[in-house]
Amino acid sequence: MTERKSFGSDNHAGAHEAVLRMMARANAGDAAAYGADPWTQQAAAEIGALFGARGGVFLVFTGTAANVLGISLLLRPYEAVICPESAHLNTDECGAAERVLGAKLLTVPTPDGKLTPALIAGRLRDRGDVHRVQPRVVAISQVTEYGTCYTLAELHALGEFCGSEGLRLYADGARLANATARLGCPVADIVAPMDVLSFGGTKNGAVGAEAVVVMAEDLMTGVSFQRKQQMQLASKMRYLAAQFLGLLEDRLWLRNAAHANLMAQRLADGLRGVPGVELWQPVESNAVFASLRPAHIEALQREWDFYVWDEQAHVVRWMTAFDTTESDVDAFAAAVRETAANGL
Amino acid sequence: MTERKSFGSDNHAGAHEAVLRMMARANAGDAAAYGADPWTQQAAAEIGALFGARGGVFLVFTGTAANVLGISLLLRPYEAVICPESAHLNTDECGAAERVLGAKLLTVPTPDGKLTPALIAGRLRDRGDVHRVQPRVVAISQVTEYGTCYTLAELHALGEFCGSEGLRLYADGARLANATARLGCPVADIVAPMDVLSFGGTKNGAVGAEAVVVMAEDLMTGVSFQRKQQMQLASKMRYLAAQFLGLLEDRLWLRNAAHANLMAQRLADGLRGVPGVELWQPVESNAVFASLRPAHIEALQREWDFYVWDEQAHVVRWMTAFDTTESDVDAFAAAVRETAANGL
Amino acid sequence: MTERKSFGSDNHAGAHEAVLRMMARANAGDAAAYGADPWTQQAAAEIGALFGARGGVFLVFTGTAANVLGISLLLRPYEAVICPESAHLNTDECGAAERVLGAKLLTVPTPDGKLTPALIAGRLRDRGDVHRVQPRVVAISQVTEYGTCYTLAELHALGEFCGSEGLRLYADGARLANATARLGCPVADIVAPMDVLSFGGTKNGAVGAEAVVVMAEDLMTGVSFQRKQQMQLASKMRYLAAQFLGLLEDRLWLRNAAHANLMAQRLADGLRGVPGVELWQPVESNAVFASLRPAHIEALQREWDFYVWDEQAHVVRWMTAFDTTESDVDAFAAAVRETAANGL
Amino acid sequence: MTERKSFGSDNHAGAHEAVLRMMARANAGDAAAYGADPWTQQAAAEIGALFGARGGVFLVFTGTAANVLGISLLLRPYEAVICPESAHLNTDECGAAERVLGAKLLTVPTPDGKLTPALIAGRLRDRGDVHRVQPRVVAISQVTEYGTCYTLAELHALGEFCGSEGLRLYADGARLANATARLGCPVADIVAPMDVLSFGGTKNGAVGAEAVVVMAEDLMTGVSFQRKQQMQLASKMRYLAAQFLGLLEDRLWLRNAAHANLMAQRLADGLRGVPGVELWQPVESNAVFASLRPAHIEALQREWDFYVWDEQAHVVRWMTAFDTTESDVDAFAAAVRETAANGL
Repeated sequence: MTERKSFGSDNHAGAHEAVLRMMARANAGDAAAYGADPWTQQAAAEIGALFGARGGVFLVFTGTAANVLGISLLLRPYEAVICPESAHLNTDECGAAERVLGAKLLTVPTPDGKLTPALIAGRLRDRGDVHRVQPRVVAISQVTEYGTCYTLAELHALGEFCGSEGLRLYADGARLANATARLGCPVADIVAPMDVLSFGGTKNGAVGAEAVVVMAEDLMTGVSFQRKQQMQLASKMRYLAAQFLGLLEDRLWLRNAAHANLMAQRLADGLRGVPGVELWQPVESNAVFASLRPAHIEALQREWDFYVWDEQAHVVRWMTAFDTTESDVDAFAAAVRETAANGL
Repeated sequence: MTERKSFGSDNHAGAHEAVLRMMARANAGDAAAYGADPWTQQAAAEIGALFGARGGVFLVFTGTAANVLGISLLLRPYEAVICPESAHLNTDECGAAERVLGAKLLTVPTPDGKLTPALIAGRLRDRGDVHRVQPRVVAISQVTEYGTCYTLAELHALGEFCGSEGLRLYADGARLANATARLGCPVADIVAPMDVLSFGGTKNGAVGAEAVVVMAEDLMTGVSFQRKQQMQLASKMRYLAAQFLGLLEDRLWLRNAAHANLMAQRLADGLRGVPGVELWQPVESNAVFASLRPAHIEALQREWDFYVWDEQAHVVRWMTAFDTTESDVDAFAAAVRETAANGL
Repeated sequence: MTERKSFGSDNHAGAHEAVLRMMARANAGDAAAYGADPWTQQAAAEIGALFGARGGVFLVFTGTAANVLGISLLLRPYEAVICPESAHLNTDECGAAERVLGAKLLTVPTPDGKLTPALIAGRLRDRGDVHRVQPRVVAISQVTEYGTCYTLAELHALGEFCGSEGLRLYADGARLANATARLGCPVADIVAPMDVLSFGGTKNGAVGAEAVVVMAEDLMTGVSFQRKQQMQLASKMRYLAAQFLGLLEDRLWLRNAAHANLMAQRLADGLRGVPGVELWQPVESNAVFASLRPAHIEALQREWDFYVWDEQAHVVRWMTAFDTTESDVDAFAAAVRETAANGL
Repeated sequence: MTERKSFGSDNHAGAHEAVLRMMARANAGDAAAYGADPWTQQAAAEIGALFGARGGVFLVFTGTAANVLGISLLLRPYEAVICPESAHLNTDECGAAERVLGAKLLTVPTPDGKLTPALIAGRLRDRGDVHRVQPRVVAISQVTEYGTCYTLAELHALGEFCGSEGLRLYADGARLANATARLGCPVADIVAPMDVLSFGGTKNGAVGAEAVVVMAEDLMTGVSFQRKQQMQLASKMRYLAAQFLGLLEDRLWLRNAAHANLMAQRLADGLRGVPGVELWQPVESNAVFASLRPAHIEALQREWDFYVWDEQAHVVRWMTAFDTTESDVDAFAAAVRETAANGL
């Protein structure tokens, strides 16, 4: 790792000062453990109101945990989750869903990380066949793992389709803040079609905190027990809550996300027309996916931190964060241009 | 809850300032995620050296998670864990062991929260019987859930017995610091007989951080994958590491524990001879278990925060923490004395 | 093993001829697989009618499987099963419940293998405590593992209690036939208070077949999928069904059980007053539990096949079966008397 | 269903008379339960010798159970199984692997149901990545779900590849008999490269019996406990064993399979050149996969019992069994020809 800004992941960034400040503020005297403290109650109330959740809000430690807890409210082991092949749930959680839920993921290849009613329908053929797991949950990511965003119309269509098919809609919102900044509408409009979703703090400037938001009231049975059993009940929960309170104050979460998105756009703009550098996905959040010549990737990685997303297609992923600066972006864009100009 | 110091749990206390300071110090620029950062490497190295661990050190979020991860290194689903009936693993983890490990706990009633070779032997009768789960792990707590401590001799005997019986020894060390302060010896001496153990930071002044310490080298296979699958891999792990670095600096962990133990002793001393107040267990850590008349318990709870441990035996538990002061203790002891003097 | 009749278990007996005959009769031409055959439909209909089941009847291979499938209809992983410490589910299923259900068993010591409302109530204290699994199912065995039978009044009381406490009542009916013979009433009266139960064929003269009977209609969701996922869906299910049809014809199941019970009673009668031989439990089914001097046990086991139930209390279990004859019993009783007369 | 022979599945056939005869022969007096009887020991010994197994042989009830038990010997939950997308394990076991093993299946699309070293290699890229499950088992089916057979050379290549990559090779042998008949070599040659496999009796003329064959000695730890915990331990196991003894006598298993294969070949031959009927896979066992015009499929299904395999490609599957006769085949072939001649 170099001293240069990492474009490897938005979790390479540290925590926002306001988050640490709020944690320090919560460090005042004793507090009831396990969430029975005023900070937790305030954070849950604020998130619930912001999202229009009729259920409740439950803080956990990681995005993987949020996905597993959220989905555990929605299915029994013989029921299955339909998700994109690229879903974090499928590719990056080391089989937590299979182990903790005991459930099968029915994956669908997608060009852009997004499910559609038609793609889901293709996975519904075996309903009622006793030899087959039964689809029950549709799991999307907003922002997707490819950095793309569902439009409100697309989300609405998914919600309608799930409702009409007796399916539940779950959303991995590890980067929901970025989607909200992108769509420019109230987050409540985005999440209205969902039954349960996660709301990510970690990639938005928290130390490490995610919220499971239960939109539907009828899903609240057992959430607290599931969270405890899934090893996600913080004893000193006030410090998870304080992280969210820090992000919620003055809509820091939205400002952080908007800034990260802007930096990604700036990077994409700075690389427009550079020969040999092609965007692989539209830039709709804080990620830039691009294809480069392998030799150029290698050369760049000697100086800069980022991931190769697809070795065979030589696609790389560049992430920006709340603390990426214009000069970070400009320096990196210059490096890419310079490397690309090099006839390696 | 009142403004008065809580005697409810050592996790009602906040975090030690040194812990928050170290977290703020770790908040400097970018860092590789998932533990590939210098803070994590330093914390693991320091704990490993302190404990004489030939395996490795893995940070997780909660005590429940540490227990489940630690034991998952030691058994297959048809193998079982022998533990005291009072074990946190059995009573206070909402069945996480059964769900995540798929394993049965073979519990043993104990008067003092401690296992002995004889008690373990009573659970070994069914070895080789295909209808019965097979004992493989002995799980103890040091400090126990009753606030008692195993002596070095007792631990040594357990280790010997487990070795000779082909059993593995696991220790829940949520309050290992308090045991170390109590025993007054190097922690490495305490943990030498163990195969895997947890080392608790949370109740010692951390925000929320526990370590799984793998003593034996041959147990390292798959630990990282198990931690990830068990939803315990922090992306910004530097902040878990920083908490431990804060506690390790100048042996703060030991000083915190010694102070808490002293306060418990002071409380016990202050209640000696008070009629109607009897110690239920010897005070060997930061817990005082005592029996009181029910009416006195009720009266005290109107002003002070603590738990009734056993309603039928009217036993209460009073916990002290790193930040309990002498005047907190004296005020509470006075309240107990005054209440006890009252002929309710 | 000797040529002598085994008193080891009712599953040491072979299959009743009528069962094998019915299997041969079912072996006629092709049949739809997985239960869509007329034999299965007939067996399910007959058992359902006999039991007054408003749900359905599902055939499986073993008693362990019946227990796990039956209970899986009733609980989520954070919910728990209250059962006697002696329950087959707890002691003799190698942790299948913990592995497949992911659930904890809350066990209760009992003198006679029977639960009572008071014993159950003692396990309900932690309801609502997020750190504790939540009791949801009460699992009894009728006949119990100690050979005792619940009376109709006792079953009714359990049903009432469970209903009033929001608990579900499950019964392991591996020897339900023996209980029915004992109580001398319609089996429907016995099972009326239960939500789900198993009905054992194997120990009653089948080759190997058990039925899960779902009494309540609202529990039918997903049973077929659970059975398949739990590896209990027979492709050629007609042969499981035929076993039950063989047992149901002319109430063979009841005659088999009545005979076995009678043989146990004859054995108990034959040993009345023999010095050093004491009944440990009343004889209410096809089991005789007795305590003997250890040397006598050893001597008897050299010639006869049976199990020592409790080594420390030197209690043995003697089981009779549908094919135990009066002369088998008399020969064995004579052997016991002779051994007991011996001053070993 | 009609009175006509079913071409729906080889499990629509009944049991071979020799199997029922042997079960009746085993029905003689008492026998020790749970496999400690002479029939079970003989069946295990015979299968073990036939296969050249250095481990052991374990009887279970279903193919799904055999797959789950077999694979459970080979992996921990964070380890994964590489298998064809079409694997029975993946498509037809209602998620038993995910629930009971807690493991993820890494599926690979194949044109012919067969894995190759190259296809497997494509799934090995993420080894060592803590976010990804770790491939450990390669699961093939011999015969495949498409009716194709691996050649000895292909199996040898798979075994070599797995060995060199630290992978274990498991084979679903539900129709291993048909593969053995096809390859015309000792079954020991076929299974030599495998670590564990199943050997199917049910589709070969049994009532319902499968064997898990452990080839490697070092895999024997815990098999018996796993089988019990997975609800597959028959109490009266002699009847499972007798089924295999019936099939093993005079190599009935091989004769049954050879006959079924011959009937499939006869069907394929009878349809050669019929316009509109095209083989979708080569006929290498007892299955004929063919594509037909949808209207013809519908017309045929009104009179005959078989499955549509792929609705979109209008591919059907026709299975033959040990009891399919030449006239069954000829009648069916005539019906197909007649339908195809019809300009529906």
